[in-house]
Amino acid sequence: MKPRLTFRLVLGETIALGPGKVQLLEAIHETGSIAAAGRSMNMSYKRAWHLVDTMNRCFKSPLVETAKGGARGGGAALTPLAEEVIGRYRRLEAQAREATDAELAELGAHLAPDVRGD
Amino acid sequence: MKPRLTFRLVLGETIALGPGKVQLLEAIHETGSIAAAGRSMNMSYKRAWHLVDTMNRCFKSPLVETAKGGARGGGAALTPLAEEVIGRYRRLEAQAREATDAELAELGAHLAPDVRGD
Repeated sequence: MKPRLTFRLVLGETIALGPGKVQLLEAIHETGSIAAAGRSMNMSYKRAWHLVDTMNRCFKSPLVETAKGGARGGGAALTPLAEEVIGRYRRLEAQAREATDAELAELGAHLAPDVRGD
Repeated sequence: MKPRLTFRLVLGETIALGPGKVQLLEAIHETGSIAAAGRSMNMSYKRAWHLVDTMNRCFKSPLVETAKGGARGGGAALTPLAEEVIGRYRRLEAQAREATDAELAELGAHLAPDVRGD
């Protein structure tokens, strides 16, 4: 099992962006719905909504816009800012992974072959 | 408030190493005790012990060794592997931060000036 390096963008006490939030944005883009995006990640609607709310508050303008209608709203769409933010996060991730490749291999060589739980 | 980038080394489902765990190791090095290290980070003994146990299981050999004696053991010390791991993590962090500096500034420019809670 290879170790992975993940990144979190932290603003004060709050994680503005991390692997889960970016994956959720990408799923909202694909499904057009916060509920469906959450389900595709085995996440409750409440949890998915909370992550979207946190992101919307962390940025100067919202990343996800919801349309009204129906019990759980009439769908959700990414704003242009969200598209930019996803692109920048993925680029940042690629840059960091490339820069730390050798050091991560050295660190990874000390890890136990298989670990479960936490 | 400036955004910070943090890193987690993930093995399977488990975070083998992240900012909190590395800080705890450094505090154990300073205090010679898991309990005192936890207290210095406002962390319960149980929580600190759990993080140490996770790290010890994630690596091929333990990062922290405890001596017996007294109600909560007779102190704790870092192994040579822990010293190497801390050094590599801090180097990896510096490499990743340097590589992502420009992209992080672009991303940070879209963040709200101050965010609380979560």
